[in-house]
Amino acid sequence: MRTLNQGVVALVLAILATAVQAHPEGPDDPLPSWNDGATKQAILKFVADATTEGGPRLVSPSERIAVFDNDGTLWSEQPIYFQLAYALDQVKAMAPEHPEWKTTEPFKSLLAGDVKGALAQGNKAMLDIIGATHTGMTTEEFSKTVTEWAATAKHPKSGHLYTEMVYQPMLELLTYLRTYGFKTYIVSGGGIEFMRPWVEQTYGIPPEQVVGSSGVTKFEMRPTGPVLVKEAKVEFVDDGPGKPVGINHFIGRRPIMAFGNSDGDQEMLQWTAARNGSRFIGIVHHTDAKREWAYDRQSHIGKLDKALDEAMAKGWTVVDMQKDWKRIYPYDP
Amino acid sequence: MRTLNQGVVALVLAILATAVQAHPEGPDDPLPSWNDGATKQAILKFVADATTEGGPRLVSPSERIAVFDNDGTLWSEQPIYFQLAYALDQVKAMAPEHPEWKTTEPFKSLLAGDVKGALAQGNKAMLDIIGATHTGMTTEEFSKTVTEWAATAKHPKSGHLYTEMVYQPMLELLTYLRTYGFKTYIVSGGGIEFMRPWVEQTYGIPPEQVVGSSGVTKFEMRPTGPVLVKEAKVEFVDDGPGKPVGINHFIGRRPIMAFGNSDGDQEMLQWTAARNGSRFIGIVHHTDAKREWAYDRQSHIGKLDKALDEAMAKGWTVVDMQKDWKRIYPYDP
Repeated sequence: MRTLNQGVVALVLAILATAVQAHPEGPDDPLPSWNDGATKQAILKFVADATTEGGPRLVSPSERIAVFDNDGTLWSEQPIYFQLAYALDQVKAMAPEHPEWKTTEPFKSLLAGDVKGALAQGNKAMLDIIGATHTGMTTEEFSKTVTEWAATAKHPKSGHLYTEMVYQPMLELLTYLRTYGFKTYIVSGGGIEFMRPWVEQTYGIPPEQVVGSSGVTKFEMRPTGPVLVKEAKVEFVDDGPGKPVGINHFIGRRPIMAFGNSDGDQEMLQWTAARNGSRFIGIVHHTDAKREWAYDRQSHIGKLDKALDEAMAKGWTVVDMQKDWKRIYPYDP
Repeated sequence: MRTLNQGVVALVLAILATAVQAHPEGPDDPLPSWNDGATKQAILKFVADATTEGGPRLVSPSERIAVFDNDGTLWSEQPIYFQLAYALDQVKAMAPEHPEWKTTEPFKSLLAGDVKGALAQGNKAMLDIIGATHTGMTTEEFSKTVTEWAATAKHPKSGHLYTEMVYQPMLELLTYLRTYGFKTYIVSGGGIEFMRPWVEQTYGIPPEQVVGSSGVTKFEMRPTGPVLVKEAKVEFVDDGPGKPVGINHFIGRRPIMAFGNSDGDQEMLQWTAARNGSRFIGIVHHTDAKREWAYDRQSHIGKLDKALDEAMAKGWTVVDMQKDWKRIYPYDP
């Protein structure tokens, strides 16, 4: 065993600090899938300002917290939220063990292929579907099922894995931020346990940096050892006004950068915008019917109406997917 | 602006990895306040094993999660939990605005100096005290009050700041672990909002690595901007079986090291011990009536009974404060 040479470590950290302080552009463009323009420039300037030693807008490394909504901000959310697609796939997979579903709604409609009819039955139907597929098992059993689904299930339109339908420009942004000492978090209305099994591999975001909706879990000592059981009881809804609450609860600091795409993100964006000092507020606007989807004020999924008005009134950065993004998905040419 | 030289970064990271891979001992002892002996050796061996590239017990950096109880594990908890001392100090400070407390229990007894009498009134009295001092304000107002208290309030016995009554050997352990790529977390029955304002400065643990008990908070848009208001409603109790639940909720991975000091930590220790692969389970045993306090099976605070039996049955590491620690507090000679 060698002695830890603290001098070497200090030297190395100093070199590293200098290296990451340099601000990339040109051939080493950190955001190659973003078209040149005001949006890209705003991002580059914000990061340069926040990380320039001695500059007036320097933000200490520990305060460099950036939060991202997931559905519609980091990956697609059409024609239905991907977590709902998981639930529907699971109903089919679990049906052989549940003969009673043949005569019980909403499962009866679902198994007959009538997804629209099943979902039209309202909130109770939705809770029954989520309850059947997300509760009554241990956290490890659930995580295993999600992992298998994420590795195999394919989107009906693109034919790609759901986890491949992530936005290449946002992947570049996440990496770029982390290079400059930001901690990147997901703050999503989606289930925290649903996201954690695949976000590290997909986004480079570790499970401990995921904030999401949750159900109650309960500790149980079984003969085989301790387990946590997912109960059919909602604990926290990380959406709308729940997002700043979730950020405060899990992170305990106010972010300096927040990105969303819908009215469900508005309070998170307001909370970040009210920070003293540097902050960056971004909205992904779905304007590309050809390469992705185009929707905003009238959409049932990812409705963007009041938050878009506020963004325009306050000068938040609105990403125009069609104009600002050279490429949408990593598999795009 | 210079171009980010990724080659330099990669090189520097490689050097850094080599440097921290070296295992310190001798004159560069990372744990100078720990007496030589089985306990210290067990810690050093665990960390060396978990971080030796190519070794059979290597744990990947992202899995190096270490969790620590706070009261009685990182700082003292006698004669009353320090958070309760905060609440009592606040009752006195707030009394001028609450003339009704002169005739309302438990405040009447408290303000007359009869702490024991006030606390003897049971759970309802305790909730009234916590409610009056921990709720009905914004998260930022609460944080400010805690910060002021932490910077000035002194322990009745030692005359030192409460935040100075932290265990020097544990501070060294936290630093040592972080040097080897561990993420150190607090997992405490104490209030998450009570700990976050001072833990970073005191332990080097950032607010986002604190798990604790919480009340419900609510987002409100005020004319001055958005706030989060602390409501008089318990949300989560991070104690006993709540600790593995809290770990799963906040961190989403199982720790490889867990340290506690009481039966309230038992389920957290069991949950960590049930991990596949390397793990370290530690208990701080308060055996030093002279330099700190001596208590275990019969104590009302920090009772250590069943967890001590389990530790002995299963070979968990029990730290004998009196024998294993050269120094207790940073201010000790």
